[in-house]
Amino acid sequence: MRFPTAAAGDGSDAINRGDYSATYVSLKTDEGVEGAGFTFTNGRGNEITCAAVRALAHHVVGRSMADIAAEPVAFWRSLAADAQLRWLGPEKGVIHMATGAIVNAVWDLRAKLEGKPLWKLLAEMPTDELVRNIDFRHITDALTPDEAAAILDKGLSSLDDRRTVLEREGFPSYTTSVGWLGYPDDKVRSLTRQAYAEGWRAMKMKVGGPIDDDVRRARVIREEIGPDALLMMDANQVWDVDEAIANMARLAEFDPYWIEEPTHADDVLGHARIQRAVAPIRVATGEVAANRVIFKQLLQAEAIGVMQIDACRVGGVNEVLAEILMAARFGVPICPHAGGVGLCELVQHLAVFDYLRVGTTLSGRMVEYVDHLHEHFTDPVRTRGGRYLLPSEPGYSATIKPASIAEFSFPEGPAWR
Amino acid sequence: MRFPTAAAGDGSDAINRGDYSATYVSLKTDEGVEGAGFTFTNGRGNEITCAAVRALAHHVVGRSMADIAAEPVAFWRSLAADAQLRWLGPEKGVIHMATGAIVNAVWDLRAKLEGKPLWKLLAEMPTDELVRNIDFRHITDALTPDEAAAILDKGLSSLDDRRTVLEREGFPSYTTSVGWLGYPDDKVRSLTRQAYAEGWRAMKMKVGGPIDDDVRRARVIREEIGPDALLMMDANQVWDVDEAIANMARLAEFDPYWIEEPTHADDVLGHARIQRAVAPIRVATGEVAANRVIFKQLLQAEAIGVMQIDACRVGGVNEVLAEILMAARFGVPICPHAGGVGLCELVQHLAVFDYLRVGTTLSGRMVEYVDHLHEHFTDPVRTRGGRYLLPSEPGYSATIKPASIAEFSFPEGPAWR
Repeated sequence: MRFPTAAAGDGSDAINRGDYSATYVSLKTDEGVEGAGFTFTNGRGNEITCAAVRALAHHVVGRSMADIAAEPVAFWRSLAADAQLRWLGPEKGVIHMATGAIVNAVWDLRAKLEGKPLWKLLAEMPTDELVRNIDFRHITDALTPDEAAAILDKGLSSLDDRRTVLEREGFPSYTTSVGWLGYPDDKVRSLTRQAYAEGWRAMKMKVGGPIDDDVRRARVIREEIGPDALLMMDANQVWDVDEAIANMARLAEFDPYWIEEPTHADDVLGHARIQRAVAPIRVATGEVAANRVIFKQLLQAEAIGVMQIDACRVGGVNEVLAEILMAARFGVPICPHAGGVGLCELVQHLAVFDYLRVGTTLSGRMVEYVDHLHEHFTDPVRTRGGRYLLPSEPGYSATIKPASIAEFSFPEGPAWR
Repeated sequence: MRFPTAAAGDGSDAINRGDYSATYVSLKTDEGVEGAGFTFTNGRGNEITCAAVRALAHHVVGRSMADIAAEPVAFWRSLAADAQLRWLGPEKGVIHMATGAIVNAVWDLRAKLEGKPLWKLLAEMPTDELVRNIDFRHITDALTPDEAAAILDKGLSSLDDRRTVLEREGFPSYTTSVGWLGYPDDKVRSLTRQAYAEGWRAMKMKVGGPIDDDVRRARVIREEIGPDALLMMDANQVWDVDEAIANMARLAEFDPYWIEEPTHADDVLGHARIQRAVAPIRVATGEVAANRVIFKQLLQAEAIGVMQIDACRVGGVNEVLAEILMAARFGVPICPHAGGVGLCELVQHLAVFDYLRVGTTLSGRMVEYVDHLHEHFTDPVRTRGGRYLLPSEPGYSATIKPASIAEFSFPEGPAWR
């Protein structure tokens, strides 16, 4: 699917432009239950991830949910380490995103079959089963199965109390809808004022254009939100390492809480150097971190102060479980990346699981919120006063309405003809 | 194209299996000159890289060679940072390999138009033009344009003497044809004996199966080649970090010169730990290093003792130039990855350029040699006594014979029908 978001400047940043797209996977059981999953992409890129899903589909078509649940890592590896496709990665980019779309659909299906929202399915899952769902290959130097089990066992205590907190208050979040690079200053100011009035006390702006423009826009937002609300900045990888350090020295006067993606997503050592230079400002990254091995190194190198997991970049729920547990092991808070197509819908489940069973605190936790495209989902996110309300329907909130699928399928949908 | 290599066990290692494939790009000028480029893939993966080349093709179709040569980084970025495709990477995996196929075809075309083999075009190119062909974004903390220019200027002295050496002696190489995991011990022994008789004094075996099997096969090869010839080992990423260190402690008795891909290709910090533990055995990697940013970190972290550039994994010749110059800046020898489809044909040009203009020594330099599929190329590699002979035809030796294209096109070629 493609959605015509580019014309409005929505989603514009220092490096990405195009219509928000998604490669949508639907798995139907013989009994007619349907699991949905997707990976978020950008414009023309979506055709390539669709080709990758087709190349992987035979690993899931005809399988039974019970068999997959019984040997989850074997299933996961059949996708992530397909002997004919691994050369195209390994575990990164197009093929890994396609793996994620399929794996996410399997989890949506499973949660629906068990009649629970995904966060609840995961939070209530026995420790040994959660551990059996994680592929520890290539991360045992940072997290062993025993260490993971210890964290998950500890998370069982007071779990009901934490759920009560979420039922009462919702999950903290921040908004990115105020400061896209494509917006003029007066639009930034009015959107910031509106968001503040709605209750948001944490907002993110894009940086990475001419530095004087970034400074001017940061001043507009800080003027509107006052000294106490949090202001985050996101450079979308546009800077070199030394350039990031120099630019953050200029932007520091606006007291940013974090600088997100200050340089190339693969540059673990570069992020570490930037983190040492800009502290106490935190370095945040993750929406383009290719897999658990990159996250492992970001943690080992003390390169980040905030870890931004993504639901669709890596190999789906199983790999995100590994990432959440590694973050807990290294004491770094998780603030999931959202926006795009349906990322808010997905990551709320992951953030809630992290709080209930792994991280066990809301301190430093926020889920990104972007007010785009929720109307196409059958179980859209709901927010109140800058907080996500706990999802209650069975599944992973991944299902798109049939009418939206028909309308925005590319290129044959009426929206594109 | 697909070639039926899987049935013979050729190319089998600890993690990849399938028929060798290539996504082949042909660029024709209005005058009928044809440039060829490709990226090497594996089996079914080739359909995905083909889709990616189609998504990028509009950046090159209709352009003039003169315009591209005048603004090479702008052209390179139009592919590598396409605003709708960068989300699928950035600069890694499927989309980056597709970029490489197109960029390689552009260089083959340019070399043919100038009537020179690629190595000669590059070695004789003025320093400022070579520097203008490199995108320094995200690597200036390791190599600046001025540092690159200084290396290239220095490489101009005695260049003719070095070319005379190559014309007389050829370029050193090693063979990987003796020790694929799919071969039984007696085949390994007879192939090793044959290679030694042909003059090879450096051979590579695959490891990463059960360690006792690896030990047994290493003993067979070392028995055949004696104590002085070089034995390299390649684990194709199958080990965890601590597992690699433990296994190399057992394999050390066979005096390996390097251990290649001991763990996940993205694990810069893991390679660094392994390198510290196994020294003086060298850690080698690169055939799956996604881009120049990964190579930069491998060098910065002192994680490798041998850097294995690949001609088709990254964004083509322009990005490899950056990698060759970074290796020189950090004093690490380059031993290019080859094999697959046509990788020997391509990397010989890169290794020769490195020796003539950048590294300026043959010490520690070897090009991999695998005896597969050369018969399909119009200008195949030629070897004598374990050395590559200098290519002399204009271009990048990338052109596949029309009859082979017809025969092995997938799925419509007669070989597959």
